[in-house]
Amino acid sequence: MPASYSTNMRFKFPILAITLEAVIIILYAVFITYDDGANSKLALNGTITPDLFYKIYPSFQDVHVMIFVGFGFLMTFLKKYGFSSVGFNLLIAAFGLQWGALMQGWLHHFHDGKIKVNIFSLINADFSTATALISFGAVLGKTSPIQLLIMTLLEITIFACNEYLVAEFLKAKDVGASMTIHAFGAYFGLAVSRVLYRPGLQGGHDNEGSLYHSDLFAMIGTLFLWMFWPSFNSAIVENPDGQYRAIINTYYSLAACVLTAYALSSLLDKKGKLDMVHIQNATLAGGVAAGTSADMMIYPYGSLLIGFIAGIISTVGFKYLTPLFASKLNIHDTCGVHNLHGMPGILGGLAGIIAAAMASQQLYGDGLRLTFPEPRSGIEQAGYQAAGLGASLAVALIGGVITGFILRIPFLGQPPDQKCFDDQTYWEVPNGENEQQDLLSSEHGRQKSNAEV
Amino acid sequence: MPASYSTNMRFKFPILAITLEAVIIILYAVFITYDDGANSKLALNGTITPDLFYKIYPSFQDVHVMIFVGFGFLMTFLKKYGFSSVGFNLLIAAFGLQWGALMQGWLHHFHDGKIKVNIFSLINADFSTATALISFGAVLGKTSPIQLLIMTLLEITIFACNEYLVAEFLKAKDVGASMTIHAFGAYFGLAVSRVLYRPGLQGGHDNEGSLYHSDLFAMIGTLFLWMFWPSFNSAIVENPDGQYRAIINTYYSLAACVLTAYALSSLLDKKGKLDMVHIQNATLAGGVAAGTSADMMIYPYGSLLIGFIAGIISTVGFKYLTPLFASKLNIHDTCGVHNLHGMPGILGGLAGIIAAAMASQQLYGDGLRLTFPEPRSGIEQAGYQAAGLGASLAVALIGGVITGFILRIPFLGQPPDQKCFDDQTYWEVPNGENEQQDLLSSEHGRQKSNAEV
Amino acid sequence: MPASYSTNMRFKFPILAITLEAVIIILYAVFITYDDGANSKLALNGTITPDLFYKIYPSFQDVHVMIFVGFGFLMTFLKKYGFSSVGFNLLIAAFGLQWGALMQGWLHHFHDGKIKVNIFSLINADFSTATALISFGAVLGKTSPIQLLIMTLLEITIFACNEYLVAEFLKAKDVGASMTIHAFGAYFGLAVSRVLYRPGLQGGHDNEGSLYHSDLFAMIGTLFLWMFWPSFNSAIVENPDGQYRAIINTYYSLAACVLTAYALSSLLDKKGKLDMVHIQNATLAGGVAAGTSADMMIYPYGSLLIGFIAGIISTVGFKYLTPLFASKLNIHDTCGVHNLHGMPGILGGLAGIIAAAMASQQLYGDGLRLTFPEPRSGIEQAGYQAAGLGASLAVALIGGVITGFILRIPFLGQPPDQKCFDDQTYWEVPNGENEQQDLLSSEHGRQKSNAEV
Repeated sequence: MPASYSTNMRFKFPILAITLEAVIIILYAVFITYDDGANSKLALNGTITPDLFYKIYPSFQDVHVMIFVGFGFLMTFLKKYGFSSVGFNLLIAAFGLQWGALMQGWLHHFHDGKIKVNIFSLINADFSTATALISFGAVLGKTSPIQLLIMTLLEITIFACNEYLVAEFLKAKDVGASMTIHAFGAYFGLAVSRVLYRPGLQGGHDNEGSLYHSDLFAMIGTLFLWMFWPSFNSAIVENPDGQYRAIINTYYSLAACVLTAYALSSLLDKKGKLDMVHIQNATLAGGVAAGTSADMMIYPYGSLLIGFIAGIISTVGFKYLTPLFASKLNIHDTCGVHNLHGMPGILGGLAGIIAAAMASQQLYGDGLRLTFPEPRSGIEQAGYQAAGLGASLAVALIGGVITGFILRIPFLGQPPDQKCFDDQTYWEVPNGENEQQDLLSSEHGRQKSNAEV
Repeated sequence: MPASYSTNMRFKFPILAITLEAVIIILYAVFITYDDGANSKLALNGTITPDLFYKIYPSFQDVHVMIFVGFGFLMTFLKKYGFSSVGFNLLIAAFGLQWGALMQGWLHHFHDGKIKVNIFSLINADFSTATALISFGAVLGKTSPIQLLIMTLLEITIFACNEYLVAEFLKAKDVGASMTIHAFGAYFGLAVSRVLYRPGLQGGHDNEGSLYHSDLFAMIGTLFLWMFWPSFNSAIVENPDGQYRAIINTYYSLAACVLTAYALSSLLDKKGKLDMVHIQNATLAGGVAAGTSADMMIYPYGSLLIGFIAGIISTVGFKYLTPLFASKLNIHDTCGVHNLHGMPGILGGLAGIIAAAMASQQLYGDGLRLTFPEPRSGIEQAGYQAAGLGASLAVALIGGVITGFILRIPFLGQPPDQKCFDDQTYWEVPNGENEQQDLLSSEHGRQKSNAEV
Repeated sequence: MPASYSTNMRFKFPILAITLEAVIIILYAVFITYDDGANSKLALNGTITPDLFYKIYPSFQDVHVMIFVGFGFLMTFLKKYGFSSVGFNLLIAAFGLQWGALMQGWLHHFHDGKIKVNIFSLINADFSTATALISFGAVLGKTSPIQLLIMTLLEITIFACNEYLVAEFLKAKDVGASMTIHAFGAYFGLAVSRVLYRPGLQGGHDNEGSLYHSDLFAMIGTLFLWMFWPSFNSAIVENPDGQYRAIINTYYSLAACVLTAYALSSLLDKKGKLDMVHIQNATLAGGVAAGTSADMMIYPYGSLLIGFIAGIISTVGFKYLTPLFASKLNIHDTCGVHNLHGMPGILGGLAGIIAAAMASQQLYGDGLRLTFPEPRSGIEQAGYQAAGLGASLAVALIGGVITGFILRIPFLGQPPDQKCFDDQTYWEVPNGENEQQDLLSSEHGRQKSNAEV
């Protein structure tokens, strides 16, 4: 990655952002209208029930919090990259949800030349941004906002196509999106990160670490993700019994995951000490892993079991796989999204395969076709689930590689190695520098930073 | 502003606070009772539907979060004023909601000598505090808690009268309160700030800046405001189709606003760097500007357009107008409420005028009178909307000037110039000082602060 | 407390945590199943109304936020104990909710060998963890995660028995759990703290104080508790009118409490300055104190009065009682849970006694038996309320003493005195130490800490 390109975004970034927004506005003028329930013309039509949105709106807001506060603050753990973490997260998500609603609308809900947006559109649009935010975690600190906007545009486009393939064509089930969002976003991001490999960062970077308070900020993200994950996994389930189950199952999977994540974090440390990286991330693996099977009849103990396993593999991944990926595969994964979204996403897909294979009239009773609408046997459905998982991984890897090469185009403002993981590259920072870090550095360092100002 | 008055609040403040609360309790004993739905006597009465509150309670809680966490943390950006920002915010809001429910009850819901409080009363009371919190932003760091309690009492009184004038008398629409809360609160606060003008702060103050971590705390406020703004703009809409539209419109206006706020922030900086002031504030202008027209048939692309413009004018305002106001008009606006609430509030009022003028049977169908209950033509309604905007601005400015002069009364504990923007004036601060700032200051500074202790 | 025991948890803690989780999974496999509304077999059964959970789910999520973000961040005020505060809080709550659902299920909802979990089970399980989190506040900084898991197991067991005694046997009312959670958790924790008394901490500990930013983190906890307390007090009320009242009453009690907490905080300080300890804690006493009577016809002014008193006694308690308890009774109460949960909990119980005694057909109308289902006179019910309060206090104290002695068993990893209140004892901390504190310490201190690394 050449260090000589300019990181000055003064015209490049505003022109890109404003152009994207202007195009979005034109496309919305042409294609997007209100759902019938939000349309004044139909407000006195007795067949419209606008009240449906009241039931789902609280879950939408929970998902909204996960996207903007959850993902945003989870990534503030880096000592000098808090502005970028929470700020670029907002930028990606705000653009992504606008583009996501268009892509998903064209593919899923395009009738008579119009897309009607309703509360589920908003939730699904938020969901679509999650893929880009997960991939952002893999390249955190190493990309410019220009690159990130382009990645968001491409990734959500590819995501929507894969989602169509998995949900509409294969008719695989994935209510909490273990496969189509979590595994997809993680492997897409890892592929991008591989293509953008920087040999200069192989030996590590001074800024790639946390501070005491940055770790506490990250816990804000962790907790809001952890608490609201039941809403994420249940929000778009259509049958009320399945929605209810998705809440209960996710709640228990997350709870069990905490116990094993803490246990492994201590076990894998020589002195038995807990590591904030694991607490911030691996405690969430239970939510990811419960995604595909959340609305299935896996019973609370099945959910606990999924969380139990997820907490273990995620913590082990952080401890051993992430360093291995960096040193052997040249895949640098800043946030360890492989451990939080990648492997737990695959685990979720596998759990969905098993749960689908076990689905039967005996287990589900008369409600079987509410949860599994396709007239397939459990084993057949399991096959389609496996196809959905495979498709998601393949599309993510191919899409990520292509996107990575596009992001390597010069003049997209990527930072040189020494300016990675540093808010100062793209932000005005108080006192010219993260003063806390400044204070920690030697007297020499402080003078240097003063000289820079 | 004389520097010789004592900032010691030991008896003045407790006596004021306890007296206000005692008077409130007496007034509540005389005037306030439960809504029928919350009244045990009517619980088995078949005509009462207490279940209505279930639909609205989640939106109330969203608004509650905006008031207490959103506004509170948004103002923690100052390096040494975090305790006061979040603490006085809580004080103002907790008192204001009690007084607001009385004022609004007397004016809007006074029957047989009683005011019945329901879930909408709680939301409206929370709303009424927003005016005082916006004005607080204009005078942040320069006023005592005693002054703030008095300002809250006066401002909410005047706000409630103006709200009555606009909503009940003019019957102008303002569901998200661009005019009656945002523009009102901003211009009220600016007028107060003008009257309290301190020549001694003309050259700036050492404490009037942010730290790295204080900017991150402020982002907590920003994000909760941003996420829950759809609830703010929709909570009190009575027709479900309009409520649904208000959510969708606000969601899109905010999303577009983020793109232009980021674009302008970079464009207006010589090095193209983003500025946290803009990210923290201008990204919210889309919520303010969508307020008046939120429930109207402006379609998602109309909402995007409003947000697009709001992000631009807000960022430009922060960059150029705020310094100009301070230097030319002697109006010091600590948080830049003119850019976040003032101009976007006017923009919202203008959007409401245009949207009302365009309202027709063709556009709204049979639901026209659900959104516009008055038997007026679109143009007529637009005229009343304009009157509502003008009234809100006029009442705010006059009310603010009067309030400002009352707040100039001596012995209200206002801080001398050198003690502005400093928690230590009214709070016990750990280690006698904001230790972080302490560390940043020179050795000389550190010794001085030790001497002060 | 011997300083020689090892704080290395490498095998002890993981084995305990994994064993507990494994046992939980087995017990869930045997005993726990879905509520009918979440059971696919009954999904097409016309008599099942799964939609009920939609009404309550938002309140559940509010309670969830209080437990994980509220309690967790409230305790981050200590300068070097933020990781443990928010991290152990998550651990205790994630384990506790799993165990709580079992205990409460066995005692309250055990039919045909099965416990059906529904949305109320999740809320009640979250509630049960609150007792352990309150007690955690009393022993914060002085216990190991192993001790905390054991305390959680024992306390929730004892809590569930007392809850059964109070609610099912005495049929005392306690919807917001002033008695059964708040007073119980506080006195249980104080008893544990007394048994674990450390003479070596009698003179105070360097780490037992706050930093500027740790106080701001704590305010995140305070505000989410404050805002969502109406959901806590109303979530499990069965009659809609009572649920509605519980929201309104709690809202007002909290608002009044803020005014008196601020007033007393200033009044009790020589210079009239506010103290963050009071703002963080005493402002919440109104929520605790409104708990028992929240759904009763106490009217808004009654609620304000309860909050008014609660704010005063809580602030006075922090100022005078906590030091007295430490010096005279050898009860060290790190977070001052006696002032936030103990005394306000008793006040809540007393308010419940008075409100129950005043209950009459005249005051409640036809709805009397919705709020007071037992065919008792008001005075009779008041007697049972008093019995419930007494039972909660007695069981808490006895249970706490027994638990304390169990926690004194050696090799549970308790920290030696000098390692109390320090994340480094059980956590990997960036730069080997809380760098902020590091910087604040003398040059000598910094060298020492470097030597330690």
